[in-house]
Amino acid sequence: MEVTIVGAGLVGCLLACFLARRGHQVVLYERRPDPRAHGPDRGRSINLAISERGIDALRRLGLDGKVLDAALPMAGRMMHAPDGALTFQPYSADRRHAINSIGRAELNRELLDAATAHAGVEVRFGQRLVGLDERTGELEFDPGPGRTARVVIGADGAYSAVRARLQQFPGVSFSQDYLDYGYKELSIPPREGRFAMEPGALHIWPRGRSMMIALPNADRSFTCTLFWPHKSLAALDSPGKIKAYFAEHYPDAFELMPDLVPAYLDNPVGHLVTMRCAPWHVTTEAVTIGLVGDAAHAIVPFYGQGANCGFEDCVELDRCLDEAGDDFPAALELFERRKADTDVIARLALENFVEMRDKVGSRTFLAGKRVEHALERVVPGYVSRYELVSFSTTPYAQVERRVARQRRWAAAGAGAAILALVLARRPLTTRTKRYKP
Amino acid sequence: MEVTIVGAGLVGCLLACFLARRGHQVVLYERRPDPRAHGPDRGRSINLAISERGIDALRRLGLDGKVLDAALPMAGRMMHAPDGALTFQPYSADRRHAINSIGRAELNRELLDAATAHAGVEVRFGQRLVGLDERTGELEFDPGPGRTARVVIGADGAYSAVRARLQQFPGVSFSQDYLDYGYKELSIPPREGRFAMEPGALHIWPRGRSMMIALPNADRSFTCTLFWPHKSLAALDSPGKIKAYFAEHYPDAFELMPDLVPAYLDNPVGHLVTMRCAPWHVTTEAVTIGLVGDAAHAIVPFYGQGANCGFEDCVELDRCLDEAGDDFPAALELFERRKADTDVIARLALENFVEMRDKVGSRTFLAGKRVEHALERVVPGYVSRYELVSFSTTPYAQVERRVARQRRWAAAGAGAAILALVLARRPLTTRTKRYKP
Repeated sequence: MEVTIVGAGLVGCLLACFLARRGHQVVLYERRPDPRAHGPDRGRSINLAISERGIDALRRLGLDGKVLDAALPMAGRMMHAPDGALTFQPYSADRRHAINSIGRAELNRELLDAATAHAGVEVRFGQRLVGLDERTGELEFDPGPGRTARVVIGADGAYSAVRARLQQFPGVSFSQDYLDYGYKELSIPPREGRFAMEPGALHIWPRGRSMMIALPNADRSFTCTLFWPHKSLAALDSPGKIKAYFAEHYPDAFELMPDLVPAYLDNPVGHLVTMRCAPWHVTTEAVTIGLVGDAAHAIVPFYGQGANCGFEDCVELDRCLDEAGDDFPAALELFERRKADTDVIARLALENFVEMRDKVGSRTFLAGKRVEHALERVVPGYVSRYELVSFSTTPYAQVERRVARQRRWAAAGAGAAILALVLARRPLTTRTKRYKP
Repeated sequence: MEVTIVGAGLVGCLLACFLARRGHQVVLYERRPDPRAHGPDRGRSINLAISERGIDALRRLGLDGKVLDAALPMAGRMMHAPDGALTFQPYSADRRHAINSIGRAELNRELLDAATAHAGVEVRFGQRLVGLDERTGELEFDPGPGRTARVVIGADGAYSAVRARLQQFPGVSFSQDYLDYGYKELSIPPREGRFAMEPGALHIWPRGRSMMIALPNADRSFTCTLFWPHKSLAALDSPGKIKAYFAEHYPDAFELMPDLVPAYLDNPVGHLVTMRCAPWHVTTEAVTIGLVGDAAHAIVPFYGQGANCGFEDCVELDRCLDEAGDDFPAALELFERRKADTDVIARLALENFVEMRDKVGSRTFLAGKRVEHALERVVPGYVSRYELVSFSTTPYAQVERRVARQRRWAAAGAGAAILALVLARRPLTTRTKRYKP
């Protein structure tokens, strides 16, 4: 079968690999120029945290080793209090579990190489989709030439042109929900050639109304992202205001950001949107049009699952093609079942924002996390939500059912007795330190 | 001020009248040809039920008399049981209250005449909006010519081209939610020159999964609308199946529909969608773009409030212009407060679908309505939700607060005692009859 994929980003490239392995011919159309020849776009989030779902997808194609070699493992959250005090909170009771910081541009280059290594995959860069006629399957590109397709899959991200077309079909429900918050990317450069902070953690400055995070890069810098309501971001409009604000609220980071003022003034403000669409595919007599990844279900970044979820889409679509004997209309119909899972992660990502910017700084929350990890070690079968989302491939909807079940048990009170015993016998230590580079 | 309105439907024309009265120059652009010269579009809902909110808007412009003269008052619902039994349920405890059936095409012609009677209003037909540049205020039309505008108001309906442009602005949240149900328009012609059923009622055939309604027309026909899941509508694909289904489920209507089979097979299936958008306006340095009516908040038709709500938008926007001293960006900013009201009617319209297709047929529901009307007569200040929505101009959100308050009182139990007394003393009679033409 010849398949047209619109979008040669992370998910489009990975899907091309899966389809090529099944023996399909794939043509990928990409709006932007080849990122292997040009620099990456500015203003898109630079860092990703790849965890088990993403790794599992890569592993199925033998791509996990190379990608993980280039990534930096983060075993937990490092909380920065306003007074500079640090608290490390492991992500998992199993200290070997980590999420992996990697640059989007680098990962995209890897996946483009992997896709084009297949003889059946071709990528056409600098081609923007401007028309899709569902009666004929004709695709129109700028600058062209066009193409007639029987199967078109939109992997073209949150602002998908394929989905924009699908939305015009009567019966296709859709929503885009923006948060009042925007984000601004900033940077902490290396200090004397070394990381300026602990590189094995995702750094968080929870400040209630605002929040900053930082992820380590291979070049020993950190990419920081400040989340704040749009109005507040815009109100810091002079070097004096920027310096004063950071000195007061992010004093330890402020010391490490020599380029804060120009970066703050020059970098664009990012938007945080959740996109929902149902159904994800339409089949006419001429063509089947489907969506995967952010094009189908863009989510906010606060659970670190956007790319992981998109990669898992490819695994699931591959499974649907197995079940449907490579009949694309039938496989895309089966693939609609995944919406139950992506709806859950969309909600969790929104909920996690509140947790990250506010609760992670509180003692109660930290104590709760310690209790949860203790439960994981001693209660057979008890696994935290974060563990299941980040370090398993249990479908998201199933994670939620399991977490709900566990909470019912816990509420039943039996856990309380066990817990009291456990805590009495095994006091937990938590690494709490200032990192000295 | 020169104002460009996109869409010369009901709301666009009415808004043009309000703006012209304020002394503004208005140019209306309409995709379709002049309906006064051509017939109306097929497949759009033909009948409207104009009630107090719509009448109030028309009254402010002196248009109410002419419109109501052409309309047919419906004082209640006439329920048709599967065995042909009829039950009349008045809409109001005040028997003078009625909603008014009028044809969309006729009302649109009236409003076009009213708008163009103003020297400051010009209408350009057959012009489809295809581009809107927010940096310059340039509007591109097919076939053209274009236009540069400082104020653009989209009154171009549920599938608004202006809103499609607004949705592309980062930060504009939007949703379109389709019901699984579609609708098909059918007709009951006059019988020997007279109405074939009682003309003073909105007829309902509640059947649980499906529902049919009929509204009287000035030519003594009825326009029927069958609501049913898309799959079911499509499954009746032969004359035999259509006849068998209607004979079984809608036997009394079936007898009155000589053209049922060709109408069913030829008429398109309509879709039922709820559109939400926030904000409704964007102001750049060059242009202010706003939305009113269905373009801002398309709702399903089950409360008979779509056009009434759109007309009330015009009254509210006129009020905002008063408050803002005719500064359009400021007025459209104020107009955002109306979303609290339109969100409520959107929800009520969806909830009323369940009531209409299912509950109105039940004895409990009918008894409840009788109790409600009894309460309205004897408890000072008690007014039903339907009464407040259809026969007042109390803002929708305020209606909901009042209804919630009334229910709390009722639940407190004081009402129960009064009610018992009332019911014991004044047994209520309900007109229940077969209409003989």
